[in-house]
Amino acid sequence: MKNPRRQTGVLFTVSVETHFWASHELTMPDGSKEPAHHHNWSVRAEVGAEKLNSSGFVIDFLKLRKILDNIVAQFDNISLEKMGYFQQNNPSAENVAKYIYEKLESKLPNGLKVQSIRIMEGPNYSAKLSK
Amino acid sequence: MKNPRRQTGVLFTVSVETHFWASHELTMPDGSKEPAHHHNWSVRAEVGAEKLNSSGFVIDFLKLRKILDNIVAQFDNISLEKMGYFQQNNPSAENVAKYIYEKLESKLPNGLKVQSIRIMEGPNYSAKLSK
Amino acid sequence: MKNPRRQTGVLFTVSVETHFWASHELTMPDGSKEPAHHHNWSVRAEVGAEKLNSSGFVIDFLKLRKILDNIVAQFDNISLEKMGYFQQNNPSAENVAKYIYEKLESKLPNGLKVQSIRIMEGPNYSAKLSK
Repeated sequence: MKNPRRQTGVLFTVSVETHFWASHELTMPDGSKEPAHHHNWSVRAEVGAEKLNSSGFVIDFLKLRKILDNIVAQFDNISLEKMGYFQQNNPSAENVAKYIYEKLESKLPNGLKVQSIRIMEGPNYSAKLSK
Repeated sequence: MKNPRRQTGVLFTVSVETHFWASHELTMPDGSKEPAHHHNWSVRAEVGAEKLNSSGFVIDFLKLRKILDNIVAQFDNISLEKMGYFQQNNPSAENVAKYIYEKLESKLPNGLKVQSIRIMEGPNYSAKLSK
Repeated sequence: MKNPRRQTGVLFTVSVETHFWASHELTMPDGSKEPAHHHNWSVRAEVGAEKLNSSGFVIDFLKLRKILDNIVAQFDNISLEKMGYFQQNNPSAENVAKYIYEKLESKLPNGLKVQSIRIMEGPNYSAKLSK
């Protein structure tokens, strides 16, 4: 994906943050399983545009929040391992970011790009996928 | 504007955050007006330099805070639509970021560049203009 | 140092945050000394990789936290001026970031790079060293 910053030297982004509650059970690099545990996950989606639209927006905050909330709704109050994606991919914060990134990118209006998805497992631990 | 990161591969920045209280009345893409409403806005200004000065600073935090506070003072406790700039430009968070970016860039000591301006309308919604 | 983002257009990072309590006595650009004062410093270390490992991690959060905590332990509950490094370099937030950046870079497993170190002196003031 092309970084809009490369073209003009300036980038506008808007970020919206939403939240979900879910458990995950990670497979560790040595093959062992972490005990399943819950987090109050936060998701911050940052969307970029080289130019503002005629209203001076990248995108209306509430419109972006609605698109993001529709994606995140499928995570809420579940064990992540129950989703097919996380049967193929370890349900790490990194992979949660990747899943949301791809879904959001496919649902944005023309001309907008996902700049980053940050997944916070709590105040001290986060994973980010960015361009 | 040139991204100092491109030249050396490393960038030092300092960020200071300040706050103001103001109302805005947004014109939406369909031409309708949102009802006027207030926010406790936060402004985070990030300033970058390729090298630290002889004191090991990008810029003294308090000096940057003073420059930023002087710019932000004109927003505090007003309806943004009363400023000439926001009669020409919808008073979106994006345009508030743009205004502060340009003002701050013109007031920084030589050798310093604004790296980003982030405007937060609350904990879940922000707009950023960055290089 | 090479920015992994340049190679693939996408970057995964994880960030962990830790904290320490220390005083510093800054020499200002005019040669004067600020009175020694304490902060509850926060350190956010962001580590990047172009690809996730076979577990879907950049690096296990707790492993990164342990490496970072071992570096930060030497700062905790001291006057920064007592460390040799800060007798050579003003103990600014910028230089604390630089010190931690270099130490962390040397201790990361192969294939991982420090993407940024952010040092927060409080909620409104921070310094960052990034690629």
